[in-house]
Amino acid sequence: MFENSGQTDLSQLGEFGLIELLTKDAKKVQSTTQLGVGDDAAVIDSGDRYTLVSTDMLLEGVHFNLSYAPLKHLGYKSVVVNLSDIYAMNGTPRQITVSIGVSSKFSVEALEEIYAGIHLACDFYQVDLIGGDTTSSKAGLVISVTAIGTVEKDKIAYRSGAKENDLICVTGDLGGAYMGLQVLEREYAVFKGAPSSQPDLEGMDYILERQLKPEAQRGLVQLFEEKGLQPTSMIDVSDGLASELIHLAKASDLGATIYGDKVPVDHVTSQVAEEFKINPTVAALNGGEDYELLFTLPLDSYEKIKDIPEIRMIGHMTEKGSGVYMADQAGNKITLEAQGWNAFKQD
Amino acid sequence: MFENSGQTDLSQLGEFGLIELLTKDAKKVQSTTQLGVGDDAAVIDSGDRYTLVSTDMLLEGVHFNLSYAPLKHLGYKSVVVNLSDIYAMNGTPRQITVSIGVSSKFSVEALEEIYAGIHLACDFYQVDLIGGDTTSSKAGLVISVTAIGTVEKDKIAYRSGAKENDLICVTGDLGGAYMGLQVLEREYAVFKGAPSSQPDLEGMDYILERQLKPEAQRGLVQLFEEKGLQPTSMIDVSDGLASELIHLAKASDLGATIYGDKVPVDHVTSQVAEEFKINPTVAALNGGEDYELLFTLPLDSYEKIKDIPEIRMIGHMTEKGSGVYMADQAGNKITLEAQGWNAFKQD
Repeated sequence: MFENSGQTDLSQLGEFGLIELLTKDAKKVQSTTQLGVGDDAAVIDSGDRYTLVSTDMLLEGVHFNLSYAPLKHLGYKSVVVNLSDIYAMNGTPRQITVSIGVSSKFSVEALEEIYAGIHLACDFYQVDLIGGDTTSSKAGLVISVTAIGTVEKDKIAYRSGAKENDLICVTGDLGGAYMGLQVLEREYAVFKGAPSSQPDLEGMDYILERQLKPEAQRGLVQLFEEKGLQPTSMIDVSDGLASELIHLAKASDLGATIYGDKVPVDHVTSQVAEEFKINPTVAALNGGEDYELLFTLPLDSYEKIKDIPEIRMIGHMTEKGSGVYMADQAGNKITLEAQGWNAFKQD
Repeated sequence: MFENSGQTDLSQLGEFGLIELLTKDAKKVQSTTQLGVGDDAAVIDSGDRYTLVSTDMLLEGVHFNLSYAPLKHLGYKSVVVNLSDIYAMNGTPRQITVSIGVSSKFSVEALEEIYAGIHLACDFYQVDLIGGDTTSSKAGLVISVTAIGTVEKDKIAYRSGAKENDLICVTGDLGGAYMGLQVLEREYAVFKGAPSSQPDLEGMDYILERQLKPEAQRGLVQLFEEKGLQPTSMIDVSDGLASELIHLAKASDLGATIYGDKVPVDHVTSQVAEEFKINPTVAALNGGEDYELLFTLPLDSYEKIKDIPEIRMIGHMTEKGSGVYMADQAGNKITLEAQGWNAFKQD
């Protein structure tokens, strides 16, 4: 009944366009609302400090495939992706709520597996599960998590705070989760064709884990604290480096240039990417779900970070209007585009 | 793959049993977690005051039927049901996040209708929409809302604070939303049989609105403040009066007796209930979704409340272990049972 051809397809707008359209009428009437839609987490003024709130919904058949995603991992991941948004504000997650919709054909034991993963993530990240909702779903499995965190007011890192010449840095390595997904999809396709076949996953543990059981960067906030560093801007890498870098540049009203040879890619990721005839750097730029943190630091932080292995410097912010580029060693620049993830794109 | 017959059916446990099972392993490691699962909202210590967090997920085919629930009302209701939980803690809602999963066949205009209802509720209840997630769903429409509120520490009302002899009170009237649903389901069944028929909804505006566009009791917190009243316990009536009263009694470790002739039922509700051969009081006891507030007040509040039309006294708390009853004028008592709503019960 909502499919009249005179209306507008959701896929035409893309996720960000859609959010912009739907939230443009949102007014701010509460004085404690420090920041609403538009960053990794919303920011509420709680007096002494800020409260951070982030929410994400994972749906079967869209965000995960139960044919190869173990339930326990799925519970774990659904927590992690939300905690990542709190860390991306330079905050510390404290509590989560979890709402789950499951088919009534699901067994209690299967649901317990999901919760085992949720509890495991709570333990590891030291957050409390404080509420939620469990209900039946006529269709697939739905998991919606809200994470609540705190941050000292002078420590918060928005997307919008980068300054010209700031160093662009990233944690960990990129593209692994995406290549893990390619391998899982390939083996699943083989399995559907020949159910007795054994999946060919040898040596791929790293990228499979990046996809199925990613971790959020809980150490970075403390590392900043210890080293006396304050990020000027930060975002988590959930949709791919290119998309996130464009977000940072746009929010900070600046340009950005990164160097292709500095983009960190693990050797397993590279190897598998080549097997799939994908340029490893392209996997890092456009593949999502790495949950690393992308951030900027003042130029004079260079001495402090050059010997910290967890932080990789990959470029710098450039003047307003100068565009967002990746440069190679020969000095050639390519314009980065947000391939991001469009949940509404038809397969 | 999760349907092995050796496993346990979700319907065997019921919603409350299930939540208990799944959250029994939840640990509390954060000192700011004041209260987790088990009340209308979770309670976080934010220094000067408490932060309240409540979350609910509405799923197509389970919680609503798009054949008769207008999208704008649905957006409105999805906010209201969460705000109701914040009011039930004697708090004031401040912010919400909204995550929506929709089929990619949904039009942008249809999604805008849902958001129009969300914005309308935000305006009316003076809350800010601060975040969320919009994604595609392979199956039905999913709406997950998290409400965030605040309450002064000395004003919070838990379910567990009722004392023996406290007055049991309720706002508004009960059973209307349930009878509204019966009418909608009946007319929908008629429509499916004869699509050209016109629905017979005359004179039923009140109960239809109770079902399709309910309101939360935003005036009560202020009324308590003005009259110098402090509820000893409170809960919102989402699953039916009987179920909520049992929750209050259990959490407060007391018994409770209410009087059948005191249970407030609107005359349209009564009329329609009789048409459906349902006892109106039974509709009030077991029908859900009224979103009124059920609370207890010290016995000596009687003089203060007897002339307040918004507050109806329906019974009193009794000693521990004495059971939860409804009494009639002749003094006969029937034991109340939680019919509640089991989302996992097979139709």
